Amino acid sequence: MDGSRRSILKTVGAGLALSGLGATRVRAAQRPIGYAIVGLGSYATRQIMPNFAGCDHARLVALVSGTPEKLQRYGEQYNIPATHHYSYADYDRIRNNPDIDVVYVVLPNSMHAEYSIRAAQAGKHVMCEKPMAISVAECQAMIGASRKAGKLLMIGYRSRFEPYNRLAIDLARRGHVGPTRIITSEHGFPIKPNQWRLDRPLSGGGSLMDIGIYSLNATRYLSGEEPVSVSAIEATDRSDRRFRTVEDRISFLLRFPSGIEATCVSSYSSAHNAYRVVGTQGWIDMEPATPYEGHAMRIRKDGVVSPRVLPAPSKNQFAGQLDHLAECIMNGTTPIVPGEEGLADLRVIEAIYRSAAEGRTIAMTA
Amino acid sequence: MDGSRRSILKTVGAGLALSGLGATRVRAAQRPIGYAIVGLGSYATRQIMPNFAGCDHARLVALVSGTPEKLQRYGEQYNIPATHHYSYADYDRIRNNPDIDVVYVVLPNSMHAEYSIRAAQAGKHVMCEKPMAISVAECQAMIGASRKAGKLLMIGYRSRFEPYNRLAIDLARRGHVGPTRIITSEHGFPIKPNQWRLDRPLSGGGSLMDIGIYSLNATRYLSGEEPVSVSAIEATDRSDRRFRTVEDRISFLLRFPSGIEATCVSSYSSAHNAYRVVGTQGWIDMEPATPYEGHAMRIRKDGVVSPRVLPAPSKNQFAGQLDHLAECIMNGTTPIVPGEEGLADLRVIEAIYRSAAEGRTIAMTA
Repeated sequence: MDGSRRSILKTVGAGLALSGLGATRVRAAQRPIGYAIVGLGSYATRQIMPNFAGCDHARLVALVSGTPEKLQRYGEQYNIPATHHYSYADYDRIRNNPDIDVVYVVLPNSMHAEYSIRAAQAGKHVMCEKPMAISVAECQAMIGASRKAGKLLMIGYRSRFEPYNRLAIDLARRGHVGPTRIITSEHGFPIKPNQWRLDRPLSGGGSLMDIGIYSLNATRYLSGEEPVSVSAIEATDRSDRRFRTVEDRISFLLRFPSGIEATCVSSYSSAHNAYRVVGTQGWIDMEPATPYEGHAMRIRKDGVVSPRVLPAPSKNQFAGQLDHLAECIMNGTTPIVPGEEGLADLRVIEAIYRSAAEGRTIAMTA
Repeated sequence: MDGSRRSILKTVGAGLALSGLGATRVRAAQRPIGYAIVGLGSYATRQIMPNFAGCDHARLVALVSGTPEKLQRYGEQYNIPATHHYSYADYDRIRNNPDIDVVYVVLPNSMHAEYSIRAAQAGKHVMCEKPMAISVAECQAMIGASRKAGKLLMIGYRSRFEPYNRLAIDLARRGHVGPTRIITSEHGFPIKPNQWRLDRPLSGGGSLMDIGIYSLNATRYLSGEEPVSVSAIEATDRSDRRFRTVEDRISFLLRFPSGIEATCVSSYSSAHNAYRVVGTQGWIDMEPATPYEGHAMRIRKDGVVSPRVLPAPSKNQFAGQLDHLAECIMNGTTPIVPGEEGLADLRVIEAIYRSAAEGRTIAMTA
């Protein structure tokens, strides 16, 4: 079997495997979609970049970093020539590199908007890490820039490409344990000092922006609804040097149009990674719910609790996410987590902060 | 061994076994404390009355009911003569019955205050089921009446006499998994229609008064603190005939003085019975947390999750509760769950309802 024949089969197979995401079969034999990674921190270098090897349609073709040593080290590791290395001063020159189809922004939160917008202006599709940006206004500007450029914009909500979370969504929305009445969702970890996440000008906020957003996003994808009421209480010890400029813990309540209520935890001082969808007849429990690997699901129905074990997926969530945008580009379809999804989270995040600051429940308007 | 010798040893042994509750050794050979049960509903007849058999110091001596058939049936079953049967019209005559030391009020919530106060006025100690009453004002009146009578007042918080909950309190308060940062607590069940719990004039409220109070009470006993901020959101489908006069679900957030945050669920349309104390180094998880039997504890510390199994107690939580008040009477000590404990819950319950109704966070004043 020659290379192009193998490539065709691989492409077709992947299209079928992802049919659950609504992707149509991709055009065969097209070259893979080329990604530039912007920001070579630990998430980019340890989680994202190694997973291009598991992709069918995405490949890593360029690197953007302010640290020449990183460009050299990762350039060698991933066989990316110096012609495809960029500093931040060079960044807009990506426009002239036809190998780059997508710019994946993995910078500190407050830089997401600027670098995503400049990528769109350079004629590139954009993948942007969560949180999409640090304000609703920035999210709207990003969506506008990509739309104006006629390019796609997708947010890095990796759990949407992970089988247990996809199953939980399916089970919850079709009422496997009865109509959903309560969702509990907790995310947090004890954060170490001295990192950009604790520096408000870079992070835009504390635990909520970074890890609590998983609690929020899960309630939205598990319910399939947007909250109409938001209430929050913050607890931050400002004498803890980690929390001089950002919040530690912020708990929040959400009420959805169908009457679902969610209680959520966001914490930078305790470890949480779980959610539970509780219906009238039982619950769907995930713990851990959104890890890099090792998800565990239990279902209680009619009084009986059983674990639910899925076979290992052929493609992990990181590769699935990278391939999804590639397929959307190839097929002219919209990502399942477009900029509007990131914007929806930021709208609620702003309401959570406002609720905690003003001591009142915020009514969300459509 | 003759009867009195056996009785002495049994008494001494029980005193030692309960030393964890702060009880001192009871006076030996005193006659058991006599209880009158007021209200012969299912909780009284199925959970409380059968458990006098497991008590060392408490015995059932009188019954109060508006249903003559119940007086006859349970009188025969428990060998209680007609001289110790009372109707509600007769109730105040308990004053003249020296066999009755304690009146245990197991009536619908809105009747707790009146029947507790009349018991105190009749010169009796009072055990009252949770919720203590349906308002702070009623709780204060009950405390005043018992104090004026020079008699004890205790609230039926049975979990405080249950080994797993007592261990959880101990572990949480001494920081076994680090200082507590978050408590999550969920209680609820899908309620069946046509019962007094759904009739506001009798219940004083919906799920929060009945089952959500367990979520609240747990956060208070696990933290050992009183909340300073309270926020709540209610979700009730008023077209559901069960919820014409009382709330279905009401979720609430609490912040405590030390910075602990609690997220709590109260539901009449989904099943929940769990809490988790999350510290900086792990968590203490109870599910089910407050059942009649079958408690289960898991502890996560330094990344490792282990079940914690306790030996079966010599005395269950119901008998432990009945004996505790008996011992307090014998020893002249104060119950660990006096009227002030019920009042503290009602203060927060009123704030929860006010927060949900007014859409604002309620600041609790000392």
